[in-house]
Amino acid sequence: MTTAYKLGGRVWIEGPEGTFLGYGRVTLLERIRQHGSISAAARSMQMSYLRAWKLVDSMNRQGRQPLVEKSTGGRGGGGARLTETGERSIELFWSAYRDFQQFLQQRSGPLQG
Amino acid sequence: MTTAYKLGGRVWIEGPEGTFLGYGRVTLLERIRQHGSISAAARSMQMSYLRAWKLVDSMNRQGRQPLVEKSTGGRGGGGARLTETGERSIELFWSAYRDFQQFLQQRSGPLQG
Repeated sequence: MTTAYKLGGRVWIEGPEGTFLGYGRVTLLERIRQHGSISAAARSMQMSYLRAWKLVDSMNRQGRQPLVEKSTGGRGGGGARLTETGERSIELFWSAYRDFQQFLQQRSGPLQG
Repeated sequence: MTTAYKLGGRVWIEGPEGTFLGYGRVTLLERIRQHGSISAAARSMQMSYLRAWKLVDSMNRQGRQPLVEKSTGGRGGGGARLTETGERSIELFWSAYRDFQQFLQQRSGPLQG
């Protein structure tokens, strides 16, 4: 029997406090862009608001500038939007992610049975 | 403030049932080689015997040949040794692991602040 093996894996971007950007965090950023609020973004991912808030806080602390801007108060207060740093961070992660997928694919070649 | 970011990650080799070889599994194989038994290897890693046995079983099922040979019975029965496939599997994983570390280091370059 020949068995096909392949390389699998995960990558993330590390900052001063550990994980800065990973798959889940970047998906959360994209949902915030889509929904215009942290709570709606969290709900759309079946994530608790507390967890989403903590992730945003961690990213904001570790970014060169905050990634998410919260607009407290106002009608339906609690809206949030991505900053330019937020947009750039999303691109930064997906670019590294794509390179990693390519690495995995290439490095899986020698594992074929 | 400039912040140094870097890419972090994990890789594993996937087989027909999911994970075939990862960092912990390969460390377990090396401990089995060192200690000559699954239970002693497990103990040396603060891993339960049941978990170690399940991991060995999973690797043996997914390898082209078994990776670990159990010698049941005999004095102090329950000894185990690596087969040639086991030795080759260890090398296979560390080789991919080293290439991945190099990828991470190179890909971290563009993330420096």
